[in-house]
Amino acid sequence: MENNQFKQACLNNIISDHQSGSAEIALVALQALADYSQLSVATEPTTYLKDLNAFAVDLQQTRPSMAILTNIIDAWLQEVNKNENKNPQSNLVTLKQVALGKANDLMVQSSQANDRIVQHVCGLIADNSVVLTHSISSTIINCFTKLTKKKISAIITESRPGNEGLLVAEMLSKSGIETQYITDAQLGLFMPKADVVLLGADSILADGSVVNKAGTYLTALAAHDVGIPFYICAENFKQSRKTSETIHLEEMDGDEINLPYMPHIAARNIYFDITPPRLISGWINEDGVQPLIGSPSI
Amino acid sequence: MENNQFKQACLNNIISDHQSGSAEIALVALQALADYSQLSVATEPTTYLKDLNAFAVDLQQTRPSMAILTNIIDAWLQEVNKNENKNPQSNLVTLKQVALGKANDLMVQSSQANDRIVQHVCGLIADNSVVLTHSISSTIINCFTKLTKKKISAIITESRPGNEGLLVAEMLSKSGIETQYITDAQLGLFMPKADVVLLGADSILADGSVVNKAGTYLTALAAHDVGIPFYICAENFKQSRKTSETIHLEEMDGDEINLPYMPHIAARNIYFDITPPRLISGWINEDGVQPLIGSPSI
Repeated sequence: MENNQFKQACLNNIISDHQSGSAEIALVALQALADYSQLSVATEPTTYLKDLNAFAVDLQQTRPSMAILTNIIDAWLQEVNKNENKNPQSNLVTLKQVALGKANDLMVQSSQANDRIVQHVCGLIADNSVVLTHSISSTIINCFTKLTKKKISAIITESRPGNEGLLVAEMLSKSGIETQYITDAQLGLFMPKADVVLLGADSILADGSVVNKAGTYLTALAAHDVGIPFYICAENFKQSRKTSETIHLEEMDGDEINLPYMPHIAARNIYFDITPPRLISGWINEDGVQPLIGSPSI
Repeated sequence: MENNQFKQACLNNIISDHQSGSAEIALVALQALADYSQLSVATEPTTYLKDLNAFAVDLQQTRPSMAILTNIIDAWLQEVNKNENKNPQSNLVTLKQVALGKANDLMVQSSQANDRIVQHVCGLIADNSVVLTHSISSTIINCFTKLTKKKISAIITESRPGNEGLLVAEMLSKSGIETQYITDAQLGLFMPKADVVLLGADSILADGSVVNKAGTYLTALAAHDVGIPFYICAENFKQSRKTSETIHLEEMDGDEINLPYMPHIAARNIYFDITPPRLISGWINEDGVQPLIGSPSI
């Protein structure tokens, strides 16, 4: 019963977190798996694995638009279940060690991937650049922190309805980065003031399209129209086998939009949009700047 | 003294009105001139005209981005001053009649122009169309009201920071029009669900560009990218002699953005953006659908 409460608390935590980027949420899910791998009350390998597998799938299903959540948990499941297949006699103690160890390994791997992305971004951005971003991404926050040496300034959006731009503003303020904070609607107006656009992503789709917070497509359109380079920063774990035709975009509660009840009027609150590769200058992953399938450079 | 209070109240009313469209504000200014033309305590024609001229110029300067305010008051001033030039002996009673009469005439003229625009729009929109708009425009509201017969539905934006989308929602709700209410950031995401985009304008510039509420440029970019017709509805009085190079875009108080104080972070709140004619399918004025200077069809 206590275990069920722990699992439900982990699931609710992720479901109700509308401000963290998907890389952060993946780390939270891995930590939940690491903790639960030691908490499970199963007394023999088969039921232990069944218990872990069920929780892992539940975690994946909390945020279906986030490819990294699916992929990183799949990588964890593969290792945990593979070990069982290879060593059918493996005891519970070994299994618990493997489950915990793999979760920790993946957390380190994701963290290192983000560090390498930040290095590639820093190599790309000139001194005194004005960097524009939309919504929040832990990778982009890390980039800004490292870029303070280059005396960059920032243009950031409030990012309705979650207003995660406020969190970005707090972090840039602490880093002493001169920042212009705008409504999402001013993105086009401020684009000519930017030198480069850097955004995170929730998923890199199989057709080269990018799923990210609603407004990303508008940002890319404006950057393309004004002629400003537009980069997506995302680790390889964010690649999805889905395409822009098959991806499901999460819709959240319309109440977040603060629309009072009126007959005939429905508040819509789809969190993510899809940006086609033709509008994206490059995808920066842990290996460097990559062209996207379908982008002009391929 | 009472007169000064009246004038100041009229000016403040317009300065602080961040929700009405420019055609509505022009009507409010004309009504102020009509009322003041009868209130002025000037006792002879020269001081009376001087008094009216000064108030008219003050009204024009309340909202420099709104061409209709400049133009409609210029038209009023021309008539009022012309009468004095032609009839230097004209007495105060005649002048007061001319000033009141011309203000009323211009209000009727603007109202009739809007009626004709609505007729042209109704001729253009097919039954069961999904019409997308951004921000508020009295002309567009009138179009929606007339279009209920055609069983249209609507997609509207909240339009931060003024949230004038709430007013649009209230009016569409009363008209029984099925409406999807979205954040500004979802404009690109919802564009493929629209059949046509209708927006008002604050100014039609001499180079064919259109000044309207921030976000209009993003809306036009998305409509152009998706291939949805994008029309600007605006009476001839909204034409400006300024160009996108010479126009000044009003910036309002950053406090409207609700950003708490943080060092290094500045809230920016420019109300208007500029949409180039290459993104606009047509300008609907009282004479019908017009191509804009610089648009693909010219």
